[in-house]
Amino acid sequence: MSITLSSASLPVFQTALTNLLHCLSKAEANAAARGFDANVFVQTRLAPDMLPFAAQIRIACDAAKNGTARLAGIEAPRFEDNETTFAELQARVRKTLDWLATVPAASIDGREEAAITFPVGRDKTRTMTGEAYLKHWALPNLFFHVTTAYALLRHNGVNLGKTDYLAGEQASA
Amino acid sequence: MSITLSSASLPVFQTALTNLLHCLSKAEANAAARGFDANVFVQTRLAPDMLPFAAQIRIACDAAKNGTARLAGIEAPRFEDNETTFAELQARVRKTLDWLATVPAASIDGREEAAITFPVGRDKTRTMTGEAYLKHWALPNLFFHVTTAYALLRHNGVNLGKTDYLAGEQASA
Repeated sequence: MSITLSSASLPVFQTALTNLLHCLSKAEANAAARGFDANVFVQTRLAPDMLPFAAQIRIACDAAKNGTARLAGIEAPRFEDNETTFAELQARVRKTLDWLATVPAASIDGREEAAITFPVGRDKTRTMTGEAYLKHWALPNLFFHVTTAYALLRHNGVNLGKTDYLAGEQASA
Repeated sequence: MSITLSSASLPVFQTALTNLLHCLSKAEANAAARGFDANVFVQTRLAPDMLPFAAQIRIACDAAKNGTARLAGIEAPRFEDNETTFAELQARVRKTLDWLATVPAASIDGREEAAITFPVGRDKTRTMTGEAYLKHWALPNLFFHVTTAYALLRHNGVNLGKTDYLAGEQASA
């Protein structure tokens, strides 16, 4: 028994983004219940030199999308970073999930030892094998941005718990 | 080619905690440079109803320790949750890494389909296969707490960047 590269990546990316969507829905409902516009979340930051909520969502999506594309050795669609509303950020997550659903697992499997070169910061790259890239870059990067988005919502008083992040809609089941 | 359950878990847990230690060292140096006691980080929170920094570190350690023990079907050592200083929290991460280094990969491999039952909140449990438990609970749970600790440090002005979290000491290389 062992784990395939596709099963260790695609469903994990999909679950993380699906649970993120669940957290965004709860945040939207919470804003409505507390009587403010959910769009105020879009530009919130945890520190003045950290990226705002909108960027956390965009990069979470891109971590899954570009991570999958690199693992599969295919081109990912490029999304403009032009969302200005909470609804547009939700749409970006949905669009990313829609694309992930089109990637055949077979395009990823067998690429455990493939050399994957990816950008790190502005003018540097790193190269890792497919397996190392998934485990030591793509997954921690995705969870970093999903968790930071969660932390921003919690910091702003949204009624989320960790199981919303871990289990999504099953959290309340 | 495929990935083993041990190689998809142990080194990922170890890297995450090693990089966390790197972030803690930078936070300690940053506190010294800014002229305050690093122990003030211990009780900081991102929201009044979120767990403080100390708990984020403890649970990050336990996510790796208990996650590994469940995957391996062995007993994990139990650590008291009694750290009150920044240095004690660093020691807890080191103690966890020391224990992880003693777990043979062979005790984890082959348990992909093993039923793993684990606590969820106070009086509930869930059961997943070893593979699903790793991918959909243990890993996201570990990264959640490591990232929240990172976010707390950043929120308090510590000079960390994402590559400190992703690459640890190699971040500045």
